[in-house]
Amino acid sequence: MCAQAASLDTSRYPHRHLLGISGLTAEEITFLLDISDSYVDINRRDRKKLDLLEGRTVINLFFESSTRTRTSFELAAKRLGADVINMSVSTSSIKKGETLIDTAMTLNAMHPDVLVVRHSDSGAVSLLSEKVNCAVINGGDGSHEHPTQALLDALTIRRRLGKIAGLTVAICGDILHSRVARSNIHLLTALGARVRLIAPPTLMPGKIERLGVEAFTDMREGLKGVDIVMMLRLQTERMQGSYVPSIREYFRFFGLDREKMSVANPDALVMHPGPMNRGVEIDSELADDISRSLIRDQVEMGVAVRMACLDLLTRSLRGAFEAEGADAGGEVGG
Amino acid sequence: MCAQAASLDTSRYPHRHLLGISGLTAEEITFLLDISDSYVDINRRDRKKLDLLEGRTVINLFFESSTRTRTSFELAAKRLGADVINMSVSTSSIKKGETLIDTAMTLNAMHPDVLVVRHSDSGAVSLLSEKVNCAVINGGDGSHEHPTQALLDALTIRRRLGKIAGLTVAICGDILHSRVARSNIHLLTALGARVRLIAPPTLMPGKIERLGVEAFTDMREGLKGVDIVMMLRLQTERMQGSYVPSIREYFRFFGLDREKMSVANPDALVMHPGPMNRGVEIDSELADDISRSLIRDQVEMGVAVRMACLDLLTRSLRGAFEAEGADAGGEVGG
Amino acid sequence: MCAQAASLDTSRYPHRHLLGISGLTAEEITFLLDISDSYVDINRRDRKKLDLLEGRTVINLFFESSTRTRTSFELAAKRLGADVINMSVSTSSIKKGETLIDTAMTLNAMHPDVLVVRHSDSGAVSLLSEKVNCAVINGGDGSHEHPTQALLDALTIRRRLGKIAGLTVAICGDILHSRVARSNIHLLTALGARVRLIAPPTLMPGKIERLGVEAFTDMREGLKGVDIVMMLRLQTERMQGSYVPSIREYFRFFGLDREKMSVANPDALVMHPGPMNRGVEIDSELADDISRSLIRDQVEMGVAVRMACLDLLTRSLRGAFEAEGADAGGEVGG
Repeated sequence: MCAQAASLDTSRYPHRHLLGISGLTAEEITFLLDISDSYVDINRRDRKKLDLLEGRTVINLFFESSTRTRTSFELAAKRLGADVINMSVSTSSIKKGETLIDTAMTLNAMHPDVLVVRHSDSGAVSLLSEKVNCAVINGGDGSHEHPTQALLDALTIRRRLGKIAGLTVAICGDILHSRVARSNIHLLTALGARVRLIAPPTLMPGKIERLGVEAFTDMREGLKGVDIVMMLRLQTERMQGSYVPSIREYFRFFGLDREKMSVANPDALVMHPGPMNRGVEIDSELADDISRSLIRDQVEMGVAVRMACLDLLTRSLRGAFEAEGADAGGEVGG
Repeated sequence: MCAQAASLDTSRYPHRHLLGISGLTAEEITFLLDISDSYVDINRRDRKKLDLLEGRTVINLFFESSTRTRTSFELAAKRLGADVINMSVSTSSIKKGETLIDTAMTLNAMHPDVLVVRHSDSGAVSLLSEKVNCAVINGGDGSHEHPTQALLDALTIRRRLGKIAGLTVAICGDILHSRVARSNIHLLTALGARVRLIAPPTLMPGKIERLGVEAFTDMREGLKGVDIVMMLRLQTERMQGSYVPSIREYFRFFGLDREKMSVANPDALVMHPGPMNRGVEIDSELADDISRSLIRDQVEMGVAVRMACLDLLTRSLRGAFEAEGADAGGEVGG
Repeated sequence: MCAQAASLDTSRYPHRHLLGISGLTAEEITFLLDISDSYVDINRRDRKKLDLLEGRTVINLFFESSTRTRTSFELAAKRLGADVINMSVSTSSIKKGETLIDTAMTLNAMHPDVLVVRHSDSGAVSLLSEKVNCAVINGGDGSHEHPTQALLDALTIRRRLGKIAGLTVAICGDILHSRVARSNIHLLTALGARVRLIAPPTLMPGKIERLGVEAFTDMREGLKGVDIVMMLRLQTERMQGSYVPSIREYFRFFGLDREKMSVANPDALVMHPGPMNRGVEIDSELADDISRSLIRDQVEMGVAVRMACLDLLTRSLRGAFEAEGADAGGEVGG
């Protein structure tokens, strides 16, 4: 058992769900990162197992397939002792709104403690969270938010550089469609980093400066003096047609390599949420350079962050149940 | 540990398997419902975990895909402490009989304790049960039986109305192809309910009155004075062609709405095995009216019923093993 | 807890991984078989559960689908108390080498203890094992090796006949593409059996005699006086075209039936790695004759062998971690 975790003050995160970074205070984010930090060492142990979620049910409800995010959540839940159910639901050829709500209410009747939900529609996870009694973690919804990704990115930076505040971070690539970018913008600005966005005009959202960031369409301009470069994955469906002229052109102007990195801070670090398209958005050799690349660290931190979120939200739930009494959640008369 | 469950008299269900409701006595059905009842509260607890199936292996062998039934069995088995293996086997382009038996014998050699089997052929689960040493639960076979569905329906009714005997229950829709209807007819008549079937002539089996039910082709006739309306799912493959003229016509004559419900008992309740086709067999608003609809309760009761069946059958198995001695099931010489 | 297993001398298998049988000594193979033997009885018990891998993570990484091998490993790991994650990765339309390594490094960052890997390319599992900190078990790679299959075959023979040395074993069918044949050739010759290969010329590798075996293209010649006949599965993709003239012809010349068995040792036994093509490579009635067929025993032994391998490799890993200190495997600074 983790002594640090055993004394969590759940009032420091007064939310039932984790639907996004937007709306969280710097204190709440820092609290999540602090708990996550305590979970890193547990994953490096021989016995990576706690019993904090023993008897709890976590359902991974993925309307969009994702092997690595699902695996990360599944591992996190199992290492906390939870029973884990994986559900992959195809949204093809179904009226989506209906299915989503009926699926949510069906699962809710099975008394899960946490639903981890990924969905291709922005806002779908938030809608679903209103229909259930359990805690909901957004595992990525459309181009809206992917909060655990932003948390694991921040934890990775904080462990390497000791801080977030005052750093200059460039996020590069398909900003327009990226929930990773959105969650990171919210988190990094909340914690006092300066955020720059670099994208071709076709992949840069309009009026993005309102979020407190600087926008660049020239990578060499945008990377000048930055401490961190976060590359985004270019979805294969954008690689042809109107968004990007060709992969070769894209790499030439927006692919990260040593030459472009030369204008950044000499110690600048590289991140990528994975899976990478080597040679498309990032040079393969740079991605593998462990003196510059934090990519593997991000994956490791991901499990710790998800353990922290599952731990915290089920503790809060427990508190809520105690307050409401033993009947909470039951609907059929005894 | 559940004290009630700890003192089960397994001689009250003298069967190795649960293949169907047909052939069970009223006493055996009532025994299954009584055990199920004791599991409802466990699922509403904070720690929903027993160790009754610790060290036991449950394999979900689904030759037909079903997210919700598989999830319900998986949750039930995990909450009892079992190791659970999910196997989805496509039956496409394979000589089915052969594959079924070879798959069964292969799994049997891995010493599972319970196989939960769903198959598109009526009778396939019974055939398979003859080839294995473990207990088999029918998770739905063709248009034959789906016994845990009938048990969960009965448990839902009994908890709400305090009894089954004397009630009038109408089952409406695609009776011809429905294993849910068949299992419910057997169970409800065995426990003393009056059962009415309502379907268009193309979806009503011939000579169904032999099962002790009344058949109606007019919904307003069939619903007069009933206490419970069980709607069936209309399979999408029947929605076009010879069974049903059009979805609009189907809903007009056989879709449940408040107007048609007006001839039923004023307190009549609505059930559906899910997933619903809203606007096809049931009006959406009625489905969501928690004063009339038991649909969510059915899902909740499903986990309890499956826990009860898994618990009971593995206890019976344990007794059998003790009687046969420690060598039971082994085939390779020591 | 298994007393026998509790005192394993891991120095008797001085390897981090199990990538193939080739390269293992007779002593190492015998050590693996001895441990496996101790696991057979555990699988026949009522409570088939140990806590040897409690807190350990086993990931089944299957780039090629296989229900039965995956299930066998999953069961083995769960019965040892491990947390198990299943990952099915399609290799279609991806540059394979890249994906393989990135997937391996991503999973490695999540701190698994054992990766069980199946891949369609010979050598892919070995390549992957060089990139990770955990133990790797080859679950079958291309036409290269399938070491746990050869171990379970040997365990099955040893338990039935008391020995391997001195036996004559015929391996029949698609030798050219078979990793099962390759692993068995290495194992059986290492332990002192005489191995004969029987195949049509199109399915017999060139210069195979270098491995210390005899090659036959006539089944009646090859089966004369053998103690064991191991049939191989004919992949459906070879059944048409240049490898095999027709299924009927194939069965006539290379399918095993009682008539062809009549030239073997009168007590000769039949084996098949499964799944069988009944009527293609083996006569259905012969396959089901429990006085001649060891096919079900093979499946049972499979779980025991995989438990032994998982147990042994994680013990070795534990020793290695202890020697390297607590920091082993971590990359992000504290």
